[in-house]
Parts: sequence; C-alpha cells; structure tokens
Amino acid sequence: MKVSELAAQSGVALATIKYYLREGLLMPGEPTSATGARYGEQHVRRLALIRALAGAGLAIPRIRAVLELVDTDERSEFETFGRAIAQLPPYVEPEPDPEFPRARKVLEFLGQVFEPRYVAVAHLERALIGLEDAGLSLSDERLRAYGDHIRGIAEVEIELMPTSSTEDGIRYAVLGTAMYEPVLTALRRLAHQDLAARHFPQHRESTEQENR
Amino acid sequence: MKVSELAAQSGVALATIKYYLREGLLMPGEPTSATGARYGEQHVRRLALIRALAGAGLAIPRIRAVLELVDTDERSEFETFGRAIAQLPPYVEPEPDPEFPRARKVLEFLGQVFEPRYVAVAHLERALIGLEDAGLSLSDERLRAYGDHIRGIAEVEIELMPTSSTEDGIRYAVLGTAMYEPVLTALRRLAHQDLAARHFPQHRESTEQENR
Repeated sequence: MKVSELAAQSGVALATIKYYLREGLLMPGEPTSATGARYGEQHVRRLALIRALAGAGLAIPRIRAVLELVDTDERSEFETFGRAIAQLPPYVEPEPDPEFPRARKVLEFLGQVFEPRYVAVAHLERALIGLEDAGLSLSDERLRAYGDHIRGIAEVEIELMPTSSTEDGIRYAVLGTAMYEPVLTALRRLAHQDLAARHFPQHRESTEQENR
Repeated sequence: MKVSELAAQSGVALATIKYYLREGLLMPGEPTSATGARYGEQHVRRLALIRALAGAGLAIPRIRAVLELVDTDERSEFETFGRAIAQLPPYVEPEPDPEFPRARKVLEFLGQVFEPRYVAVAHLERALIGLEDAGLSLSDERLRAYGDHIRGIAEVEIELMPTSSTEDGIRYAVLGTAMYEPVLTALRRLAHQDLAARHFPQHRESTEQENR
C-alpha cells in the first residue's frame, strides 16, 4: 500500500508517519520510485505498537529503545524484558540512596530477590521515602497482605503472557506493565468505596449525590 | 512559639509559612502584638499535613478543600472521606462517556456497586479505554484475579484505618490512597521480576549486570 493508505489504515496522520520514518522508528517501505515506497502489514503493526507505547507515556528515545529490543533476538528473553520494562515511567530523579535500605528490608521480609539494578527497586525506595515523609507506616501486617496479593496478581499476569513470539512477549510485558497499572489503581479506590459503603450503609445515599 | 520557631520546628521555610497563612491554609496564631503572633502544636500538625498533601501531588486549591473537610464535622464520615479522596490525582480530562459502559461492565462482573458519581469510576473507564487503544484485553480470568486480590488489599487498608478522630481518618484516607499506591506499583513490577527470574533461572546473572 502507499503511505497515504498506510495513514488511512493505521489511523496515524501522514505527517506523523513521515516523522517516525525520519526518526527510524518505522522501518522504510520497499522503494517503488525515486520518491514512492510500498508499505505492508508489518508497518501497520509497528505503527500500532509505537502508538501504544506513546500512549503508555514513553518519549521517542524510549520508544526507540523498546523497538530495538523487539528487533534484536540476541539477548535472553528475561534480559530483553527487563531492559524493555526499564524504559517505562516513573523515572526516579533524584536517585535515592543507592543502597536502597528501605526497599532491601521490604524485599527481604517478603522473601524476594533484592537486586539493586532492577529499576523498580529505586521506585520502591522512593515510594517508601514518600510514606515516611507523609507520616505513614508500613506494618508487617500490611506488607504481608500487599506482598501476597500483589504476587497473586503478578502470577496471573505472567501466566497470561503470550508465547507466540519475542515481539508479542515484549509488547505484552511493556504495555501490560504500564496499561493494567491504572486499572488496578482505580479498582483499589473502588474497592475502598464499596467496602466503606457497606460499613456506613446509612450514609451512602447522601454521598452518592455529592461525591464529585 | 514565634513564627521563626515554627519554621525551625516544622522544617517549613518562613516564606512558605507566610504564604500558607495568606492563603488561609494555616490558621492564624494568637496575636501578641501588632505584627507578632504565637503558634502552637496545632500549627506544627497542620503544616505537616499540608506538606504531606503537597507531597501527594495536590495543588493549593485541592489542599484547601481537604483541610476544609478536616475542619468541618457536619457531614457523614463516608461522605467526607469520598469528597476528600476526590481531590487526589489523576484528574480525568477529557471526561470519557458519562455512561462509563466499560467500567459498569467490570463492576457488575465483580459484584460491586456502580455509582457513576464516584470519581474512580471515570478513572477506571479511562484506564479501560487505554487498554483497548493498546490492543490489550481484560479476560474474565484476569479480572477475577484483579478483583479478588485488590479487595484483599483494600480490606486490610480499611481495617488499619485509625478511628481516633475524623482528622486522623481523613489524613489516612487521603494520604494512604495516594502514598501506598506507588508502593503497590513497585511491588507489582518486582513480583514480575522475581517470578520471571525463577522462570528463566539460567538468564538471571546477565540481566543483573545490564538491567539498568
């Protein structure tokens, strides 16, 4: 198909497609003349992936890094996935104490591997500092519940990972990490409200009218 | 104590304290002269709360809204909590379809109340649209696991809510909703890596060296 047809089929504006071509995010089409080229299904799929990664909050250099991982089969899957997921926000600035003492304690309590080179260890340390600053505690009871339930969620998520190709796997790992996160966050707040509504049934009606 | 001592004790800069006084976030001290005033423990506590709310990402008008809820005892607790939590990000713009068809279906599946005036219903609808745009699905198996485990987390969080005063309750509800969220998010990513490391044990070493 021509580039104009690619724009129509993918729903991505022509100017944006040209920008992705210049930036090297989208592979060139097969040349048909000095200025024309033919595009195929691989371009449609690639545009869908670029758009989804942009939708997950990734800037162009980070999208490029994920696409390079999709395109090279040299590394182990585990390593490739780790590198791909490391492109996702949040980007922890400034870096907390590189010993990550709070995160280490939490992970040891949960019996999980403590590997400071995992980006999420810095996320956890930063989040735990945020708790301290807000005067909130992380009791053993709370942490045990968090650890068990989050592990249950992660197990299902890993079970449901597609094994058809490395590209499908990376797409799922990166997009799934980013895009199911706000679903879980919203469900947590709704579970609070559902539980509270059962706890204070007499007050539910007035709240329903004024809660926004 | 004098305002300079309040600054020293609270760790909040003098200029910031004066700004909070002008904005009405911090209650005035007891006047001691035409220009001086005396401050007490309630001011230290209030500054800590303001700082924690700002740390949770709230802008001044939203901090003011939470403080007004802390200061008025007229409404039901459930309503007060709902209003306070509604001040938290994310702020959904533009609003999705006000019928929230995706969120409704999910909440009905989970057997939870569907109340479109809960702000988190709009969050959920927006997150579900994000999934669709990224080409990700929400199977019954995944949703059942999400619903059960998130409910388990929410139950412990509600159990641990302090009941000493409405102020303590609101502080916990607002700050806890915001500040435990990144802890859960980081734990989910770490659980993925822990599970994957067990699944691909032969690849762990190389990843540990290159994952950042």
